[in-house]
Amino acid sequence: MLSKSHIKLITSLKQKKYRLQHSLFIVEGVKTIKELLQSELTLYALYTTESFNIDAKNEILITEAELKRISFLTTPNKALAIFKIPEVKSIEQGGLVLALDAIRDPGNLGTIIRLCDWFGIKDLVCSKETVDCFNPKVIQATMGSITRVNISYVDLELFLNKTSLPIYGAFMEGETVYSTQLPEKGVLVMGNEANGVSKEIEVLIKKKISIPKFGDLQATESLNVATATAILLSEFRRG
Amino acid sequence: MLSKSHIKLITSLKQKKYRLQHSLFIVEGVKTIKELLQSELTLYALYTTESFNIDAKNEILITEAELKRISFLTTPNKALAIFKIPEVKSIEQGGLVLALDAIRDPGNLGTIIRLCDWFGIKDLVCSKETVDCFNPKVIQATMGSITRVNISYVDLELFLNKTSLPIYGAFMEGETVYSTQLPEKGVLVMGNEANGVSKEIEVLIKKKISIPKFGDLQATESLNVATATAILLSEFRRG
Repeated sequence: MLSKSHIKLITSLKQKKYRLQHSLFIVEGVKTIKELLQSELTLYALYTTESFNIDAKNEILITEAELKRISFLTTPNKALAIFKIPEVKSIEQGGLVLALDAIRDPGNLGTIIRLCDWFGIKDLVCSKETVDCFNPKVIQATMGSITRVNISYVDLELFLNKTSLPIYGAFMEGETVYSTQLPEKGVLVMGNEANGVSKEIEVLIKKKISIPKFGDLQATESLNVATATAILLSEFRRG
Repeated sequence: MLSKSHIKLITSLKQKKYRLQHSLFIVEGVKTIKELLQSELTLYALYTTESFNIDAKNEILITEAELKRISFLTTPNKALAIFKIPEVKSIEQGGLVLALDAIRDPGNLGTIIRLCDWFGIKDLVCSKETVDCFNPKVIQATMGSITRVNISYVDLELFLNKTSLPIYGAFMEGETVYSTQLPEKGVLVMGNEANGVSKEIEVLIKKKISIPKFGDLQATESLNVATATAILLSEFRRG
């Protein structure tokens, strides 16, 4: 049974300020919830139409109509869980670090987190203008990768000023990545969907790289930032 | 002014069967509409809150409230246009052909069309189970690339049976793409989001390729199909 206070809490977690206040975030879908239950994350509450056979004090059985009422999805998927937001670990800077300069679209950030997981990028560093990684739409797109990537929100200018790693950035006018010698350790900066890398960050970039266009002159003016990140991370890793 | 019959037509175009019946599709947003007006597509009607200074018989000035009523977007963007669905050109098979086996997500298809445009892929061949490329969500994600890629919906098994090009396919267990010799001319098959390439198509693949995973064993089990397509097309083109 869903109480009014449950509904109020869940609905509030759609907003970043309440996620920060309660230090909680929402996850939907049986598969992702099961993956997160096996991670080091701490479950706060599970609302489900079918029992997960976990410690009963955290599990609340609900009806499909109740799930529909609390779900953020058009087609709710059997369960919704609340997890505690984990503490941020310090940035290791041991290998390749991905830095995001004001990525706004939750789907893009979710896809990029999944790419970090695939390519073994331990540290994802986001400017404070980047969409919150505990936004439900981001969580939906990460498919559980959120537990395996260390995500920090920092003053990106300060971070890049302090790092000893070489700084690469994606720019339309950069050198083609296919013929650039890429290091194992470094920072790759990806810019905002509409405006690219900001002026303050651009001056800190050591090497501008780009993905060549093969279509005719009229072809699309840019790639989506998540697909561009996919290609660039692949280039760094392929050696 | 919006008449009831306009509203009825626009609303119906959300559904594939009415798009086919009328041979019309919807485009939203000033930037994309302007791009399409400069293409070989034929405008059927333009509903806009600010005049585009085009032939007045096709332009209907509306209020923001009216736009909100007909828009498919949460935040409507000043204009909505109806264009005629162009005739499909025959498949050239002159270079690299991308084939999609039952891609279901409109955002993924839109991103893939934009990738084809970027990488100069002229022919995109879709199985009949693939989401319709004139779906409003696909159009939204293509950013105008829809006019520069020749998209055909075919019996994919039949098409692959008949082509003389070498057929490559993305498979988890495939040979790493980084060490595979890739031809300039060929077909690359990408499979469905949940199930990958279907059994009937798998037997027609000459060479299975994959993108290696660099994260630890627990890392995400797969990449999103649009990001995987980005990496593979980049590999075919980088030479």
